[in-house]
Amino acid sequence: MSKLVIVGTVAFDAIETPFGKTDKILGGAATYIGLSSATFGVDSGIVSIVGGDFPDDYLQMLNDRNINTEGIEIVKEGKTFFWSGIYHNDLNTRDTLVTELNTLADFNPIVPDNFKNAEFLMLGNLHPSVQLGVIEQMAQRPKLIVLDTMNFWMDNALSELLEVIKRVDVIAINDEEARQLTGEYSLVKAARKIFAMGPKSVIIKKGEHGALLFQNDDIFFAPALPLEEVFDPTGAGDTFAGGFIGYLAKTRDISFDNMKRAVICGSNLASFCVEKFGTERLQSMTKKEIFERLQQFKELTQFEIESN
Amino acid sequence: MSKLVIVGTVAFDAIETPFGKTDKILGGAATYIGLSSATFGVDSGIVSIVGGDFPDDYLQMLNDRNINTEGIEIVKEGKTFFWSGIYHNDLNTRDTLVTELNTLADFNPIVPDNFKNAEFLMLGNLHPSVQLGVIEQMAQRPKLIVLDTMNFWMDNALSELLEVIKRVDVIAINDEEARQLTGEYSLVKAARKIFAMGPKSVIIKKGEHGALLFQNDDIFFAPALPLEEVFDPTGAGDTFAGGFIGYLAKTRDISFDNMKRAVICGSNLASFCVEKFGTERLQSMTKKEIFERLQQFKELTQFEIESN
Repeated sequence: MSKLVIVGTVAFDAIETPFGKTDKILGGAATYIGLSSATFGVDSGIVSIVGGDFPDDYLQMLNDRNINTEGIEIVKEGKTFFWSGIYHNDLNTRDTLVTELNTLADFNPIVPDNFKNAEFLMLGNLHPSVQLGVIEQMAQRPKLIVLDTMNFWMDNALSELLEVIKRVDVIAINDEEARQLTGEYSLVKAARKIFAMGPKSVIIKKGEHGALLFQNDDIFFAPALPLEEVFDPTGAGDTFAGGFIGYLAKTRDISFDNMKRAVICGSNLASFCVEKFGTERLQSMTKKEIFERLQQFKELTQFEIESN
Repeated sequence: MSKLVIVGTVAFDAIETPFGKTDKILGGAATYIGLSSATFGVDSGIVSIVGGDFPDDYLQMLNDRNINTEGIEIVKEGKTFFWSGIYHNDLNTRDTLVTELNTLADFNPIVPDNFKNAEFLMLGNLHPSVQLGVIEQMAQRPKLIVLDTMNFWMDNALSELLEVIKRVDVIAINDEEARQLTGEYSLVKAARKIFAMGPKSVIIKKGEHGALLFQNDDIFFAPALPLEEVFDPTGAGDTFAGGFIGYLAKTRDISFDNMKRAVICGSNLASFCVEKFGTERLQSMTKKEIFERLQQFKELTQFEIESN
């Protein structure tokens, strides 16, 4: 069984969409990544930090899915990272209403001893120096390191971010971020520039328009499943990343052909994530539903054609 | 050999993109549709109108590709429809600088007698009453009618447009137009509402993000090929439509499975269109290039996966 270390936020979110709003609910990149990768039965551990206000029930829910939470530091006198946002009508744009870092402001990640030999490492969106700190705690270089990041760090911690990028195998960013990072409008050219920064594989996430996987001269495209209703996009990108690395950790095959399957799995799981608020649907989805929807992805994309 | 009637503009375009600008060059929806569908060797005829300023060389170039131009009325004392536009940096948005309808203002389409029995009819983007006039001239109901239209007609001629929509088999519009036409944000729901208006199949064009084909509860997605350079997007949607109906006219099979192949062919041909200004690349591309790029579409989308 492959071990997977996930570093990222474990948080409270308060979300408003055109379809409703929530009080503080469970959120955070590591939470979504953890729930998503857990569907592959990998031996995962989250490295994060929360406050004394974080319910034991949430930790228990993660443990019940074989997600180790020893690496989640609990600062009894502190408060858990809190984010609040409101989505606009098209759900493609959102405004952040509140960001309270709380305990996250002084996060010093500690990888539990029995996860230091993990072969798979997922660096969820966080300050690049925290991500770097986790890489340096690993007993040996993991077989695969996947990095998620965002434009905020490009604007505010670019040199540290470039240092992390240099040390990872796969980077997952959205199309606008790829363009910002490289100054190239063409995603083909942007991916090539990112290869030169370190990663051998680049995933460009395009939300409702799917995701592109680049490696050398190979390109693979995974669509997003067209859905009747998108209820809440929060966590979809993290869920995608968790599905990607979870599938690779389960199959222990990091070839390009297997990465194709991994991005399809990521896209598949992300399609569940957006159907309800927060992590609700990730908690309720069944193996059968996940498998059936994978068939829908096949029907959506597979064709036979001989010649023109 | 299937006959294909194409109604649409034959025009002069003057285009400016971040990469350069052109004087008046050959353009128009029917031109792009004609050149694209001609790659399938169908027996096509364009129904359109031009002025005395339209070069014989252009007509000859179309004839050389087995595109019949008897249905292109030449108004000797008139001028050809002229459009000029400038694309912004991301090539996804453009401003129209000039629209001179000229002879198009009084266009009364006449389908040549030997095309009135055509089995395939492509209604390129034009005033819906012109499109309707062509449907009514056909000797019998064609096997397949495909409609391309745009938001301008939704704003300015909605009742005529709805009348045309009622009488076609396939409609091809972009995502924003589908949302405008139906009031539904979800493309799945939008397609279902359009089914109720008449068409059995709905194609939603998303430009650089590909195209979706809907029929009953089936959905198929054709990506756009990620390109190093997109030089000029003019005509890409028409080229897509021409490839779609051209493939169907060649194969004479309008099943959903064959329509899947047809949208891939459309997407394939559109990827050539954008590589140079205007119709330049459509005129220079070879059968070998088209076939090879079709293999790239396979590599881009095809995967094998057993279970989750």
